[in-house]
Formats: sequence, C-alpha cells, structure tokens
Amino acid sequence: MGDEGTLISKVMAAIRRRVASRSLPVGAKLPSIRQMARTMQVSPATVVEAYERLAAEGLIRSRPGSGFFVASLAAPLDLSEIGPRLDRAIDPLWVSRQSLEAGEGDVKPGCGWLPPSWLPEAALRKALRGLSRASDVDLGEYSTPLGLAPLRLLVGRRLAETGVEAAPDQIMLTESGTQSIDLLCRLLLEPGDVVLLDDPCYFNFQALLRAHRVTVVSVAYTPSGPDLAQFETILAEHRPRLYITNSAVHNPTGATLSPVTAHRMLKLAEAYSLTIVEDEIFADFEDSPAPRLAAFDGLERVVQVGSFSKTLSASARCGFIAARRDWMAGLVDLKIATSFGGGRLSAALVLSVLRDGGYRRHLDGLRHRLAGARADVAARLGRLGIVPWLMPRAGMFLWCRLPDGLDSADVAREALAQNVVLAPGNAFSVSRSAGACLRFNVSQCDDRVFEVLEASLRGARARAPA
Amino acid sequence: MGDEGTLISKVMAAIRRRVASRSLPVGAKLPSIRQMARTMQVSPATVVEAYERLAAEGLIRSRPGSGFFVASLAAPLDLSEIGPRLDRAIDPLWVSRQSLEAGEGDVKPGCGWLPPSWLPEAALRKALRGLSRASDVDLGEYSTPLGLAPLRLLVGRRLAETGVEAAPDQIMLTESGTQSIDLLCRLLLEPGDVVLLDDPCYFNFQALLRAHRVTVVSVAYTPSGPDLAQFETILAEHRPRLYITNSAVHNPTGATLSPVTAHRMLKLAEAYSLTIVEDEIFADFEDSPAPRLAAFDGLERVVQVGSFSKTLSASARCGFIAARRDWMAGLVDLKIATSFGGGRLSAALVLSVLRDGGYRRHLDGLRHRLAGARADVAARLGRLGIVPWLMPRAGMFLWCRLPDGLDSADVAREALAQNVVLAPGNAFSVSRSAGACLRFNVSQCDDRVFEVLEASLRGARARAPA
Repeated sequence: MGDEGTLISKVMAAIRRRVASRSLPVGAKLPSIRQMARTMQVSPATVVEAYERLAAEGLIRSRPGSGFFVASLAAPLDLSEIGPRLDRAIDPLWVSRQSLEAGEGDVKPGCGWLPPSWLPEAALRKALRGLSRASDVDLGEYSTPLGLAPLRLLVGRRLAETGVEAAPDQIMLTESGTQSIDLLCRLLLEPGDVVLLDDPCYFNFQALLRAHRVTVVSVAYTPSGPDLAQFETILAEHRPRLYITNSAVHNPTGATLSPVTAHRMLKLAEAYSLTIVEDEIFADFEDSPAPRLAAFDGLERVVQVGSFSKTLSASARCGFIAARRDWMAGLVDLKIATSFGGGRLSAALVLSVLRDGGYRRHLDGLRHRLAGARADVAARLGRLGIVPWLMPRAGMFLWCRLPDGLDSADVAREALAQNVVLAPGNAFSVSRSAGACLRFNVSQCDDRVFEVLEASLRGARARAPA
Repeated sequence: MGDEGTLISKVMAAIRRRVASRSLPVGAKLPSIRQMARTMQVSPATVVEAYERLAAEGLIRSRPGSGFFVASLAAPLDLSEIGPRLDRAIDPLWVSRQSLEAGEGDVKPGCGWLPPSWLPEAALRKALRGLSRASDVDLGEYSTPLGLAPLRLLVGRRLAETGVEAAPDQIMLTESGTQSIDLLCRLLLEPGDVVLLDDPCYFNFQALLRAHRVTVVSVAYTPSGPDLAQFETILAEHRPRLYITNSAVHNPTGATLSPVTAHRMLKLAEAYSLTIVEDEIFADFEDSPAPRLAAFDGLERVVQVGSFSKTLSASARCGFIAARRDWMAGLVDLKIATSFGGGRLSAALVLSVLRDGGYRRHLDGLRHRLAGARADVAARLGRLGIVPWLMPRAGMFLWCRLPDGLDSADVAREALAQNVVLAPGNAFSVSRSAGACLRFNVSQCDDRVFEVLEASLRGARARAPA
C-alpha cells in the first residue's frame, strides 16, 4: 500500500507539473487512463485513483463520458521555476530582489548601482526646478513615438564619440536599458529560439530571457571578450539568433573587449547570421572608450542599447536603442503596443542634466572616485583572501574569487542575516560554475561590509564539509 | 515558359512567407526538393529553379550534400503583419501612430487624451518644485519592487471608493496602464492561448495581444456590457484564458456596465475558469462610480489595472496593478526582469499631485467641462448626420455612426490630408465590423474639426461607389 501510495503520488505530481508548466492548459483534456498508465508504467487503477484525488483537490474535473479536464486556474508563469534549479535560492532574480527590497540600514555591496550621494543630485534638483518653470515643456502630453528629438540627437552625438554612427531616426528612447533589450527580444525572438549569453553575465539577462521562453546557451568570458573558439563552436552547433553582451565595461567581470576579438566575433556573427545586442549601460564610466562592436559593424547586425541609470539617475527612467533604420518602425509599434508613449518628463530631465556642463565634471569626479575605491576595496578584500579575477579599467565592479573553495551562496546567506546584500557568483552564471565567486560594488563597500564579510567567511568555513 | 515562371514565383513566395513568419528560422533546413515539389504540386525542376533564385538573392544558401538553409536575417516581428489585413491601412496601431506623430498644428479628435490645457499643469509644476526641494525624495535610486508605499496605500484607498478591496501588498506600481496589462499577459498567457476582447474595444488591446502571439476572439458590446448570450457561447466554445475590458467608462463606446450584467459575467467566468483584467483607466472621469467587476469578485479572478495618464499627466508615467496576493511575487519578478525597478520620480510626482487638495477640484471642473463638451459636440455632429451610439455618462469619447453608409476609413484618410487625425471604427473592431463608426474625443474638437469633417464627408460621398 505504501508502494501503491508512492505510485499514485508520482502520477499526481506528473499531472501537477504539466498543469504548472501549462503543457496542460485550463480546459485541456488529460491523457486517458490507459495512456497515462502506459506512460508512467503503472496500473490503470493507480491512474484512476490519482485522477480522482486531483479532482477532489479541484485541479481537474471529470466530464462523464468524455474524461478528465484541467479545471482550475493553471499556475501563472513563475520565472523562478523555469531555469536551472541546481541552486534554487540563488537564481538570477536573487540579487535584484534582495537589493531592491533592502531596508534603510542595509548595506548592498552586491547591488548594481551607486549610492545616491555619488550621483549628481544637485544637478537633478536644478533640472527639476528648471522643468517646473519651463514654458516649452509639456507636462501633460505623451512623448512622440521615437521620443524627445533633442535627446535623440544628443544620444547620437555621444555614440559618435565611441565610433558608432546613428542618425536621430535610428535612435528610439525607452523607459530603461532593460526595456530596450526587452523590446529587441520581442522584435527578434520567438519562443524556443536560442540566445547566447556570456558566462558570467549580468543576471537580469537570464531573468529577461526566461520571460521570453527561449533557450539560453553561454560562452565563457575571458579578460578580452568571449572565448572565440567556444563562440564559434556554439554558433555552429546551436545557431543562436541573438547574443546579448556588455560593451565598455563587462558586467560582472569588468573586462574590456579587445579590438581583435571584436573583429573576429563580427566575422563569425556574419557567417552564422547572428544578431548582437550590445548593452553599453556603463559607457559613462570609461576614461577612454573600449572598442564597440557597433562601431566596427556600423549597426548592421549589432544593436546598441543604453541608459542613464548608472551615472545620472535610476529614478528618472530613460534608456535608448540605436538600431538599423529598417527595424525602427517595428520597434516603435512594439513600444506603443506594450507601453504606449514614452516618458516625456524623464527624457526632459535627462536632457536637461546632460546639457548642463556640470554633468561632465560630475563624470570626471566619479571616475576618479571609483578608481580610488577599486584599489582600496581590492586591497581590503585581498586581506581576507578574496582576489579579483582582474583589475578593471573602469566601473564599479570587482569580480572576485573566494578562498579555500568556499561557496559564495553560503557566504551570501550568512551576510544577509547581518543585513548585508552580497552578489553570489552563480546568479551571474548560466552554467552555474561561478559558485566560488562574488561580485563587489566598490561604491557600496563601507567598513561594515568587511566586518560582516569576515564573519560570514568564518561561518561558511565552519559549515563547509570537512 | 510563362506558366513555368508563375510556378517558380509561387514556390519562391511560399518560402519567403515561411521565412518572414519565422516558421523557417535562420539556419533552418528547407524542405527537400522532392518534398516541396509534392507540397506545391509542381515538378522538382521548378523547385530547383526557385531555390536557386532564392539562393542568388541571398535568402537561402545551399550546403553541398546537405540541402538548402535559411541564410539571411529573417524579417523581424511585424505587428502590422499578424492581424487581420482586410483593411491594412487602418490597423489597431493606426490611431496611436497618427496621434502620437501629429505635428504642432494638427488637430486630433481621434486621440485618447486631453489637451494639455485641460490637465492640472499648475499642480504639476508645483509638485515638480516640491520634489526639487524635498529632502526625503531620493532622485537617484531605483524604486522598491512594489513601488512607492504611500502611493500604493493611496491607490488602495481610491479603489475602496469603488468597492474594490486591495491591501497595499496587493498593489504593484508600474510605468503605465499599458505596462500593467502587458505584465499580466506575460504572467498568465502562453503563445497560442485565446483571449477575449470587446467589439469594439480600445485598439491597443489588440496591438498588445499581437505581441503576445495569442488568438483573439471578441464579444459584441451592448450599452450595459458584453452581450451575455454571446459571452457564454464564446466561453464554452473557445475557452479563453483572459478577458480584457474597461470598467468605469468603456472605450470607445462610453457605455456603463450594469450590476446584473457584471454579476452574470462573473458567474460565467467562474464556470469557465476565465480570468478578467478590468482596466479602470477612466475611473476619475466618473461622477459616481459604475459597478466594478473586481468589487463583486473580491480580486479572486478579476485583476484591476489603472493609471493617472488621462486626468493627471501622460508624461509622468505611472500605473498600477491590483491583484490576488499570490500573484504579486510573480508580477514583481516579471517587472524586474523586463523593466528593472520602477520610476520613483514619476510615482513621487503623482503622489504629490494626488495629495494636493487641488486635484479633487481639478476633477470636479474637468467632469463639468467634459459634460458640456459631450453635449456640444454631439449637437454639432448631429448637424452633420453623425449620431452617437449612446450618450455616455462620463468621459471624453463619443462613439458615433456616419450617415449614408460612408466608410470611416475613407473619411479618416480625407481628414488626415487636412491634418486632422480621426479614429476610424475598424481600428477598434476585432471583427472589422465597425467601418461605419468613428470615435470622437470631445476635448479635442475645435471648429476646424467640424469644417474638415464636413469636407471629408463630402469627399468620401463623392468617392463612394454609386
């Protein structure tokens, strides 16, 4: 009976899984008793009992003479259910959720943004005052489909500084860098397509792609870009439709693409009809621009996206897409369909700050301050045996390896109990092979971080299997 | 040879269609010569010639010994390609595109928003000044996952006035009402699901659903809600997973749901496991609230969405979702994955205006002004033989029928040549059965609208088939 009970549970679990994954949607007919018995290698009586119990729960119901059907609301799409579950607690949304939900007193060396005091708050306040007085700013209207023209012009000029040529009609403003990538996925992907990511990569690329129901493959990232041999093998084998990566400063590694790697990548992309989304969200952190794929390629098969959330304000939501001219109408349609007009207010605010000479000075100061912080934090981490994979040329991140084979998920959990949000390596790793790594945001590392880190390392060591 | 040429073109067109629709994605192998010849009922030689020509064009390429493969970038998703194409020029995106792209001097009686001078611009400017000074507003940070807590509390209180009970943890702020519906579609729908809309309905529901690759069915809307007999038949026959509709003031008809219809709809929704998205974007136009499905249902199988773009500002992007508590975690994950944090700045601005006593006064004045404009515009349209389907109790829309069997697409094209953007009926109609209708926004109808309308009617009459 115990054994029979186990078999009944097994059948019930199989149906529940199929309902949860929507392979059996509401209203769908369940497999016949006989068919299910064959599939699960159990007796028909076992299936009858399992179906009856599921009907009693309300998940399915029987229609006399025609079988069993899915009755209740199927479980809604759950991003945390879709991906690899080897390390359930540390999924790609872990860092975002913990960082965005952190309380007042929490420290967030794992988060991906600067503290408010590092941002040009005075310039933002000045811009708000300006907007409240300006007679030419329409505070009530939707934006035009492509977005505020003078800001598009200015974005084009900024891109030109990195060698990317984009006319204002090839630039569409969005509400964020994330929305930019989302719109491109909507334009270019179908469910079931294959998409290539770096390993490690920005964790939200994975979360976003789960929402698009595509298959993700990954290529190891080296200090000068993706591993080219692996890149070619994957292109030949999996034929990914898209590759999403960071230019300027790679997240989380801080690596910089080399010109020779960029050139070879583009040749391979052409040979295998690959489209590349180049996210240059960290562009303003650079002293001198690293090579851009979009500059080599001329926006043929490379699309650029970016935003102002890292160096100007994460609160005024404004991003952009620079793409081939023949994709713009489709992108505009998708933007209208899924978010209607853009935010004229945020765009006007960003434009006002960018136009102010103070923003360049702010960036100069910021780069200097980050360089100091990178050196300082690397030294302090070194004393704990935590070593950066490389010393980045720019940006806020240090991608580090823990000592003694410690598991960063363990360390992150210990630290979270002390209200310190760390960013464990596997949140960034499609292959879940970065369990020994942590990403540190040097602008968010105060003394308490190192104290808690030391204690957490001790805790993780004590709990590690001998 | 002419005949052979036609057959070759036929095969080429078939392949092009399959590449454009992505049923043959990049890298996919084409059907073998023999197979394609059988399918198209042509000779193998015809297929060989067609494939060679497509290869010469670069769309496909041959790999010796293994056949033909799709070579070039497949056409990206084109929303205008997916839906019904009976009336290509007037697709669901027509009104949005024309209205959002309208130039300075254009008049937009077809658009879905108020002129800036009808919005509380002084209150907005005051709120901006306040934000520029406030010490407690963080201008650099991302918002928390659910969004600004005091605004969620306030949204909950406003919903309570219509009988909808939603605790702050059942409310998530978004960047727009459209994004709210988009996130719900992402949570609840799979490609290929069936979704029910009203006929007529807000055109962007159709555009949005195309982006989700679902099948749309529609139910005729009556002055008191959807036609109940048809509603039941459709639920039984098509088993739609979602029904998206307007509460408060129906767009485009201005109809008001009756309590008895609401009650019966909910019983049917329960019987057929239907989830309902109730968009209450026009709520603030009402003098006294019409019945809300969500109030009857208690947010069990009804989800409410809304925004502040119609009565406060379309520029400060801020919307919300009020839903079952067990859906909130999934919605938050999707919001983070697809747009990261929300816009704290817009939320703070909206909160500031809503808290100001001036907003209630603004609404009182606005409702009065709209009531006058509805009566005035109805009278002036009547003189042209254009008659409202009903006189709405609230809001900015009049859904009208043209005289003499005139086609509203024709009239709209005539008017557009005179820089007047009208909203032709079939943009709102899933069944494309509203060719004789136009939606008028009474707040955007100045003298020129009636002059151009009169001339356009004349033009359309002259061009109409005798």
